[in-house]
Amino acid sequence: MDLWFTEEDSNAIRYGYKIKDVLFEGQSEFQKIVVLETEAYGKMLLIDGCVMLTEQDEFVYHEMISHIPACLHKDPKRVVVIGGGDGGTVRELLKHPGIEEIVLCEIDAMVVDECKKFFPGVACGLDDPRVKVKIGDGIAYMAEQTNSVDIAIIDSTDPIGPGEGLFTKAFYSSVAKALRPGGLMVAQSESPWYPPAILNRIHHNIGGGFENIMPYMGAVPTYPRGLWSWTLASNDKLNLKNFDETRFSEISQNLKYLTLGGVHGAFSLPPFYAAKLEKKPNL
Amino acid sequence: MDLWFTEEDSNAIRYGYKIKDVLFEGQSEFQKIVVLETEAYGKMLLIDGCVMLTEQDEFVYHEMISHIPACLHKDPKRVVVIGGGDGGTVRELLKHPGIEEIVLCEIDAMVVDECKKFFPGVACGLDDPRVKVKIGDGIAYMAEQTNSVDIAIIDSTDPIGPGEGLFTKAFYSSVAKALRPGGLMVAQSESPWYPPAILNRIHHNIGGGFENIMPYMGAVPTYPRGLWSWTLASNDKLNLKNFDETRFSEISQNLKYLTLGGVHGAFSLPPFYAAKLEKKPNL
Repeated sequence: MDLWFTEEDSNAIRYGYKIKDVLFEGQSEFQKIVVLETEAYGKMLLIDGCVMLTEQDEFVYHEMISHIPACLHKDPKRVVVIGGGDGGTVRELLKHPGIEEIVLCEIDAMVVDECKKFFPGVACGLDDPRVKVKIGDGIAYMAEQTNSVDIAIIDSTDPIGPGEGLFTKAFYSSVAKALRPGGLMVAQSESPWYPPAILNRIHHNIGGGFENIMPYMGAVPTYPRGLWSWTLASNDKLNLKNFDETRFSEISQNLKYLTLGGVHGAFSLPPFYAAKLEKKPNL
Repeated sequence: MDLWFTEEDSNAIRYGYKIKDVLFEGQSEFQKIVVLETEAYGKMLLIDGCVMLTEQDEFVYHEMISHIPACLHKDPKRVVVIGGGDGGTVRELLKHPGIEEIVLCEIDAMVVDECKKFFPGVACGLDDPRVKVKIGDGIAYMAEQTNSVDIAIIDSTDPIGPGEGLFTKAFYSSVAKALRPGGLMVAQSESPWYPPAILNRIHHNIGGGFENIMPYMGAVPTYPRGLWSWTLASNDKLNLKNFDETRFSEISQNLKYLTLGGVHGAFSLPPFYAAKLEKKPNL
């Protein structure tokens, strides 16, 4: 029997994956969680029917969301990851010896538990002594922080469902207040190929909390349309000249996607994408 | 009624597109040609069931395959495009005022005819006085050329079917002989996410005809796995330092994908891709 899982994008595109096995199906308090064994990409994590990660390409997303803020910040000591219960972002952050504490605040314990079971290569950093895993609401957690975070990483699902509150202006303002001087936020910000309304809603809201924003891109084969974006934000100036090439070169031999040339390419927005954005990035 | 077209990749992944209309279906002497009106990407050209281009994202592929060799060559006058009957590569090449002659050698007249009809925005350059359209075998055409071509662009379908001969060592050797000193070839070379065997067969064969090769990448949402590659080849040294930034900046305001930073990023191969290639690129 041929078994296929299909993800729909805007009722116009479908991404189908041939399945060897359904390894886990569970309904948590917040969402439906499924782990599949796929033919093409190894194990795959679905949340509410959307592909979150696969074993074979997860490194793209996780390297992009972690090392760029880590090397752009002058000297990050304390990093907070909101969402990201799979542990991939934490695993990458741990490659930076200067980072002293990583707080992972994930709302759904089932994500953490099942990822530890099925994706040990992704979740491997969650038991590190530098990491504190908190199961709880990221919005409430950030509201409690004032002037104590160097980098906040919003490693969320899409702007529908439990992740919705992580895309609001109120939340971004609360993140801004949590940051120390020179602090940075980065959030996943959907595909540059999505309609302008979706991209601008995110940018408009981030721009409501922060003075400066800078989107960048990377190619994730199992995310819709293959090209993805993340957006950096700060109330201090953002400048790619501050990217610490020395610190990057010290960890780059352990990376599978990101290169120094690739970092610069990631910020060089194609005109088709830049043209969609109402709030022009200030690089 | 919901109508969907589905493309299969390695019997493991499916890409489905919701269809508004089937605009054309024809069987030429060489292949099956279909034009669809899709919900997500406008008109779409299929050859033997594979997506060749769509109205909304074709600029990525065509900018990547044309402007990089055009700006890397010192002063290209005569360019030959093998395949590329849709005209997109020719349209981009025409943006370079220094190019005096572009020969398009496409084996299948039906591709040219139907693209002129259904994709006027892509095929628009084919009637330009600088362009010569030849309907015929690209292998035979290149065999007739000696020391007369500055840039050869192999804008082919995949290495199965009528395009297969365009991926052989014998063909690449014949292209090398056709080039003038300082001449370049570029060929589409499949997705960096494909298995090493596919990528190395192409690289091994190009390496049989040319001393120096340099792959580069771009994100095409309607090609399998979203990230695509092209490979430059020359018997002269290839060096990104020779990329003519002045000539590029003169045309870049007419581009939708490529930026100067993006050019550098495109050549900065992610380690997961570089590790697959047996013949290491000599950049």
